[in-house]
Amino acid sequence: MAKIRSRSFWSKFQDRWTQSGSLVCVGLDSDISSIPSFLKAGSNPIWEFNRALIDATEAYSCCYKPNLAFYLKDGLRGLEALKQTVDYIPDEIPVILDCKVGDIGNTMAAYVSAFFDELGVDAITFNPLMGSDVASPILKDERNFGFALALTSNPSAADFLKSDALAERISSWIENYPEQQIGAVVGATQSAELEAMRKQLKGRILLIPGVGAQGGDLKAVLDYAIDSPESPKILINSSRGIIFKDSGRGFADTAGQEAKKLRDEIHSLLNY
Amino acid sequence: MAKIRSRSFWSKFQDRWTQSGSLVCVGLDSDISSIPSFLKAGSNPIWEFNRALIDATEAYSCCYKPNLAFYLKDGLRGLEALKQTVDYIPDEIPVILDCKVGDIGNTMAAYVSAFFDELGVDAITFNPLMGSDVASPILKDERNFGFALALTSNPSAADFLKSDALAERISSWIENYPEQQIGAVVGATQSAELEAMRKQLKGRILLIPGVGAQGGDLKAVLDYAIDSPESPKILINSSRGIIFKDSGRGFADTAGQEAKKLRDEIHSLLNY
Repeated sequence: MAKIRSRSFWSKFQDRWTQSGSLVCVGLDSDISSIPSFLKAGSNPIWEFNRALIDATEAYSCCYKPNLAFYLKDGLRGLEALKQTVDYIPDEIPVILDCKVGDIGNTMAAYVSAFFDELGVDAITFNPLMGSDVASPILKDERNFGFALALTSNPSAADFLKSDALAERISSWIENYPEQQIGAVVGATQSAELEAMRKQLKGRILLIPGVGAQGGDLKAVLDYAIDSPESPKILINSSRGIIFKDSGRGFADTAGQEAKKLRDEIHSLLNY
Repeated sequence: MAKIRSRSFWSKFQDRWTQSGSLVCVGLDSDISSIPSFLKAGSNPIWEFNRALIDATEAYSCCYKPNLAFYLKDGLRGLEALKQTVDYIPDEIPVILDCKVGDIGNTMAAYVSAFFDELGVDAITFNPLMGSDVASPILKDERNFGFALALTSNPSAADFLKSDALAERISSWIENYPEQQIGAVVGATQSAELEAMRKQLKGRILLIPGVGAQGGDLKAVLDYAIDSPESPKILINSSRGIIFKDSGRGFADTAGQEAKKLRDEIHSLLNY
């Protein structure tokens, strides 16, 4: 059975930000090879790992973002862990599946059915390379939300996204879609890039990966990427910096502290 | 347990072409909503559907290409069907997982582990938007093969791939990689495009979707996309035209006939 999604991601996100005061997205990149070894004797280590992480971090989290790759890597058991994780996350906290899918219409419709209807997530990331055929199936249910890959912070983003103004063209293409349903993934590296992307994507929710717990990067992101101080419309994702900071029995407590620390750093830089 | 892959895709593909004389890739887009209704009472309808299809089409197939979306749509049962399908396909017939994944290095490494090592496919499709970080993890095992999305035949390919020479830039980027491990997905619509892509991708295996059973399209593809008459290095994919041609109890026989027909049309156009 799918988790019942009573509300749209857009509305859940805004309420969650207001109620929690957090812009932290906890990336559940729960790689079976990296989780604490004492959990590996259990029947489903990834699920046990995620449950403890969610308990410890939920007070400081705006959203959770599991990445599909790490669940598929653990086969059927991994997919089961993903389902249990999505079911376990409290209804008021939006879940974004990081899957970066992108295919023709009937195939995208199958992904949309798999992720939103069966798994029950609130949002997905998608790859816009194949054009509007990728976005259209997401829009068919107004609760659905998609983050288009517009700019990434990995070293080889220079190969395509940062050349020939492709990131700018993707941003401009995003403007064809309602802000209630389409946002963007914008990698955080250079402040000038962030500023330009935000200018074009006024009012949209931006998902920002690649931010360490370093105050420097974070300050640039907050200075240039927020939509307004009252309604920043950004999600600062941290994955390994939260979930794999401690590989011992105290991993969940440490994760909770790291999530709180990131939330507080954001507060302090935004002068809340 | 993963299926043992004793050989590379590159070598399996060449042998299979030589032995079967077929360039047909059967797309196993086994959408649970579209499979014959009499199969739906079974414990795993997609697996039953695929098994019958493979039995009926294997004599005429060079490769099989399941698309991940349709398996995820059926949840855990779907992923189980995918695993059973990959295990069932005879070892001499290469399996390409159509997943169009593309992510940063450690995440791509998880996909590579999931698909090649655990599931046991011979090749995957991938989306090169994020650059070389996507391709590198595929190369780590020389048996692995990846088809980069270079040009697609869907209507909205014009949004990005067919504008600002992006398809040409992707083709040129592919040349950085060994032909034994990286090929390209090239949508078949216009002969001039195909000709240009083949010219740049000399010696590479091209996976060509979007070809109907219409002699016209097919003739253009064969005229412009083959590498040489002796070693065409192309795969003509047909999915719905083979597997969903008949929704009755004779679906597998019909699929076999359609696969044979496509193989024979290719033979006739290539003057074999």
